[in-house]
Amino acid sequence: MNFASDNVYGASPEVIDAIVAANSGAQPSYGVDDYTKRAEEMFSEVFARDVTVLLMATGTAANALGLSAITPSYRAVLCHAESHVMIDECAATEFYTGGAKLIPIWDEDGKITADGLRKTLSETGSRPPHHIQAASISLTQATESGTVYALDELSDLTTIARDHGLKVHMDGARFANAVAALGCTPAEMTWGSGIDVLTFGMTKNGALAADALVFFNQALAESAPFTRMRSGHLWSKGRFLGAQFSAMLEGDLWLENARHANAMAKLLAEGLEAVEGVRLSCPVDANELFPVLPVKLHQTLLDAGAVYGTWPGDGPKGPGTIGDGEVLVRFVTSFMTTQDDVERLLAAAR
Amino acid sequence: MNFASDNVYGASPEVIDAIVAANSGAQPSYGVDDYTKRAEEMFSEVFARDVTVLLMATGTAANALGLSAITPSYRAVLCHAESHVMIDECAATEFYTGGAKLIPIWDEDGKITADGLRKTLSETGSRPPHHIQAASISLTQATESGTVYALDELSDLTTIARDHGLKVHMDGARFANAVAALGCTPAEMTWGSGIDVLTFGMTKNGALAADALVFFNQALAESAPFTRMRSGHLWSKGRFLGAQFSAMLEGDLWLENARHANAMAKLLAEGLEAVEGVRLSCPVDANELFPVLPVKLHQTLLDAGAVYGTWPGDGPKGPGTIGDGEVLVRFVTSFMTTQDDVERLLAAAR
Amino acid sequence: MNFASDNVYGASPEVIDAIVAANSGAQPSYGVDDYTKRAEEMFSEVFARDVTVLLMATGTAANALGLSAITPSYRAVLCHAESHVMIDECAATEFYTGGAKLIPIWDEDGKITADGLRKTLSETGSRPPHHIQAASISLTQATESGTVYALDELSDLTTIARDHGLKVHMDGARFANAVAALGCTPAEMTWGSGIDVLTFGMTKNGALAADALVFFNQALAESAPFTRMRSGHLWSKGRFLGAQFSAMLEGDLWLENARHANAMAKLLAEGLEAVEGVRLSCPVDANELFPVLPVKLHQTLLDAGAVYGTWPGDGPKGPGTIGDGEVLVRFVTSFMTTQDDVERLLAAAR
Amino acid sequence: MNFASDNVYGASPEVIDAIVAANSGAQPSYGVDDYTKRAEEMFSEVFARDVTVLLMATGTAANALGLSAITPSYRAVLCHAESHVMIDECAATEFYTGGAKLIPIWDEDGKITADGLRKTLSETGSRPPHHIQAASISLTQATESGTVYALDELSDLTTIARDHGLKVHMDGARFANAVAALGCTPAEMTWGSGIDVLTFGMTKNGALAADALVFFNQALAESAPFTRMRSGHLWSKGRFLGAQFSAMLEGDLWLENARHANAMAKLLAEGLEAVEGVRLSCPVDANELFPVLPVKLHQTLLDAGAVYGTWPGDGPKGPGTIGDGEVLVRFVTSFMTTQDDVERLLAAAR
Repeated sequence: MNFASDNVYGASPEVIDAIVAANSGAQPSYGVDDYTKRAEEMFSEVFARDVTVLLMATGTAANALGLSAITPSYRAVLCHAESHVMIDECAATEFYTGGAKLIPIWDEDGKITADGLRKTLSETGSRPPHHIQAASISLTQATESGTVYALDELSDLTTIARDHGLKVHMDGARFANAVAALGCTPAEMTWGSGIDVLTFGMTKNGALAADALVFFNQALAESAPFTRMRSGHLWSKGRFLGAQFSAMLEGDLWLENARHANAMAKLLAEGLEAVEGVRLSCPVDANELFPVLPVKLHQTLLDAGAVYGTWPGDGPKGPGTIGDGEVLVRFVTSFMTTQDDVERLLAAAR
Repeated sequence: MNFASDNVYGASPEVIDAIVAANSGAQPSYGVDDYTKRAEEMFSEVFARDVTVLLMATGTAANALGLSAITPSYRAVLCHAESHVMIDECAATEFYTGGAKLIPIWDEDGKITADGLRKTLSETGSRPPHHIQAASISLTQATESGTVYALDELSDLTTIARDHGLKVHMDGARFANAVAALGCTPAEMTWGSGIDVLTFGMTKNGALAADALVFFNQALAESAPFTRMRSGHLWSKGRFLGAQFSAMLEGDLWLENARHANAMAKLLAEGLEAVEGVRLSCPVDANELFPVLPVKLHQTLLDAGAVYGTWPGDGPKGPGTIGDGEVLVRFVTSFMTTQDDVERLLAAAR
Repeated sequence: MNFASDNVYGASPEVIDAIVAANSGAQPSYGVDDYTKRAEEMFSEVFARDVTVLLMATGTAANALGLSAITPSYRAVLCHAESHVMIDECAATEFYTGGAKLIPIWDEDGKITADGLRKTLSETGSRPPHHIQAASISLTQATESGTVYALDELSDLTTIARDHGLKVHMDGARFANAVAALGCTPAEMTWGSGIDVLTFGMTKNGALAADALVFFNQALAESAPFTRMRSGHLWSKGRFLGAQFSAMLEGDLWLENARHANAMAKLLAEGLEAVEGVRLSCPVDANELFPVLPVKLHQTLLDAGAVYGTWPGDGPKGPGTIGDGEVLVRFVTSFMTTQDDVERLLAAAR
Repeated sequence: MNFASDNVYGASPEVIDAIVAANSGAQPSYGVDDYTKRAEEMFSEVFARDVTVLLMATGTAANALGLSAITPSYRAVLCHAESHVMIDECAATEFYTGGAKLIPIWDEDGKITADGLRKTLSETGSRPPHHIQAASISLTQATESGTVYALDELSDLTTIARDHGLKVHMDGARFANAVAALGCTPAEMTWGSGIDVLTFGMTKNGALAADALVFFNQALAESAPFTRMRSGHLWSKGRFLGAQFSAMLEGDLWLENARHANAMAKLLAEGLEAVEGVRLSCPVDANELFPVLPVKLHQTLLDAGAVYGTWPGDGPKGPGTIGDGEVLVRFVTSFMTTQDDVERLLAAAR
């Protein structure tokens, strides 16, 4: 009954098997090995076009490297006020860019709206060079609130972005969950929707340590190999990154894992909503739930051995939405969550 | 017969086994798991004192993070002119420090000498704030020329450093090979010799992707957890780093692997020296050889299927030491090099 | 009738005279000349204690240098959401710190409140190393809304700051106007109120190009001479900075100029408030007014030749405070504003 | 008899007069005033083509800003080993670029040779992304050794640079002295010789604090206005920069001043060479001399009240060129040096 995060479990058995299998023979070092090449080819297949891919171990690295490729030091990144790049990465993007500014946009449910984006664009950058000018926008898909942008929502935002000369990054730490939720193709949700650069997260979804930086706009990829090197993210034994990605992409394991996690979240959400006094603070589109629980129920669940976290702040609807005697919490399901886990939690809740 | 580098092979079987074993059950994420804790304890045992350890995947990350912990943006790092931090990391240290300067010291055989250090200190920093002032020195052990500083050489250098207010970093990408070569304890070669911060490399020596940053002077470790986070080097599934280190430290596998690699290098060196026209450009203390070969012999070896690289530049003795019709090459042995590999190469050479 | 800013006029005649006078004879270069020394002594007299002073040409430089001296790259600065460092300096602080984050606090009238500070401190930094931790706070005195912190407001804020381990910077681009407004001593409003580092602005108040960075906590001043050098703010002919500061400090010209500007602002505020349909959006404590004007009156004033600017955003009271048919504008008075300027504007307004 | 530097004296009377004259009336702030506009026009006239000019107060700022405009954070600047950007600016370029690397080229007499440049290019950058790749080269004209590149020397270097995809910066802290020495036009010595970006120094040559960054390749100027803002180099009272430049450019005062300084240097050089035991360590092309003096003569000159400095290091010809009993010193002449100063020094020397 551990719902604390989608990284509290290990890796998919297929990933471990691939690592074991990759451990034989000599391979050239630093990312020109056969395993990396195979993974790179698979990415182009998954996205149905040529892409430039850089393999690395963490999503924070891929986000910051990707944003630094499209944001000069003297310009700004627009992002949701509660996005991972804004809040949870100890200013990684500021570090990688050499001091660019992240300008937060607050909208409900973790999603930037077209209105919110237009308003921020009209307010910022009006007095160059005093006001810093935006160069890029980062969209999180699925969002930090467990919601998923519809394809037309993405297109609307990227159209506005492009009209203002911005490049578009997608933080896909939970990319697979979003694709599974929308039932679209990876191509549709990325370059088909105006995305230039993607962080394709595998770690939360079943890899050991593997997130890829994918450039659809390959002209933007010039700096990334150098930045990856100097930030220490180029593995000498690249085979062990390549093997993880190949295993995840093979036979659509990445999508299967995500579909399972999403299904478990749906099951949990439906069960919890039926419990008196519980409400979901925003839609459950992917594999995260942010329910508001009566404090007493919260204690009951903890006593029953459930592992999950309370969530700081005012919640995805903003101030005033969490009452006294209530607590906002987060449950995350993953490829390892079992139906039994969910049912035991719901039994404790009833 | 692949002597191209010590990272062209995979990982020690024990490391792979440990990863497989670690892949069960839930663990808290981001480096507070049981596997990381166990590895941290083992580091304190190995060094016979409390140390602060940060686990990460690459040596470039550990070097740059470690140097940034002891070098403010507006000061300088002294290092050998041919050191990895100077030449091979695409200015990682400049990036992590926010623009500190690396000041090279050239001395023979990859080692900084006390005289070379004193001369550089007297020349630099004489006109503050115009001239940048040194804050730290980085010593590579084993060096990039395959030599190893004796303990008294280390102490001499760190004493001078301390007299000038410098902190001392050791790049131990081949730390194990150096300890094995000297036959001393890890404590003697580090804090016992005046080292403040160590990059303890495991990747070349048998891990999959694992280098640790070890602070003996724990007061210097304040920034590192934050810098590791914002540079994207904190793994969410930390168990897979912890498990690698524990496997390498368990039963001194790290030392065994290094002793084997050193022995293979010695065997190869002795064999090559006996071949007419071959000479070693500097002593073979660890697991790297830099022989000067007649061009014809070089071709013979390549034709026989030997894999190794030519080495750029003037060699560890400086200009004028490589003659016409000669070529400077590098052989690296590793935990995976077999006696058969060595003998086949020598047979081809004779 | 130019009220566009306090930097649209030139310099006080005394400052120009001092520059003319300083232009004779040889002086050592790079800030060790007699004029600089004299200015440094005068700063210690003005603040009634030993201070470390660095002379430079602009307030943005002094702010960013000062904040970089108290904020490591991996930590954060707290500041008002509408402060100059947050909005108007093209991310100078992010640049000088190497990627620290500025965390905005929004409170009315341009002032951070104790409650606002406590709330922000409780929200940020709860999950190190994921959440960036605050290292410092920057207080603007007088504020960007033309208000002035009372001494006890300053003390309350700096006490909270100190309890949380923060260092305190004061952006005193309009320091003189604030001292004049409070009628206190410079010492009381700075180190007596818990300020560690001050940007002492002279440019807006009558100098040609001269803002000083003043360290009351002299232990914090170690990096600043080097950062000033490498950012290009150390003048070779330092005499021309020293002379400006001496002229401004001599006979309290800085205070006289500020008192005059404040008096003109008061006169203008009282006159405008008496005009039908005009209201002041916040108190006029120093030399800036932010009146809300009927659009028609605004046009009348422009037609009469008045020069001033409309002000972007929602105003110092927040959203909903500027009605339809109204416009928020800014008037700034300076040492050069005449009573005649004010009266002509008021005549046009009536 | 002060020959310590060309910044130990104040400003040309014309510059002071211009500042006095500019101190009247209102002007828009932050560099869009009439004085700045006039100066910008004059630059285009001086260079006989449209240029983008950014006015600022110091040469270090102009150098670092200019180099950051043509050098991404992850690439390198080639420069002479004894150049100001390498040695004397406390790593300003590393700071402004966010951690680019400066790669020194050592050649005699302060000049990079075509052979030296080719050798460095062949050695660096061979193993991307491990080895950092050069993006730019900085040429100092007149050099730090007081020599001047001939036009064909410049063209040879910039042709090689362009063939390798490098952009070219000229550090013209003593630009005027070089133009005066060559007797060519400013256009010939810059864009006519392949220069993309120029630091046009006025401070040493008669301004108060004024060095301009001039882009001949205007497409490279995109970042500079923002970087100037965030580094604190945009003056609010821009008129006082504009006025200085206009005064210097008006009637070719800049060239007159430089011709005078060069003539005084020539006189001094010829006089010293005639003194027994004295030799010039390299040609005297501009306004600096680096004579080698017998220690005894050196003492005699100091006793006679001459002010000048000894010069650190091995001198412009390299190690072994300064004998025992000798001392390498530097004399600098300026627009304020009088023939009487020179003759008194020579009298003391004889």
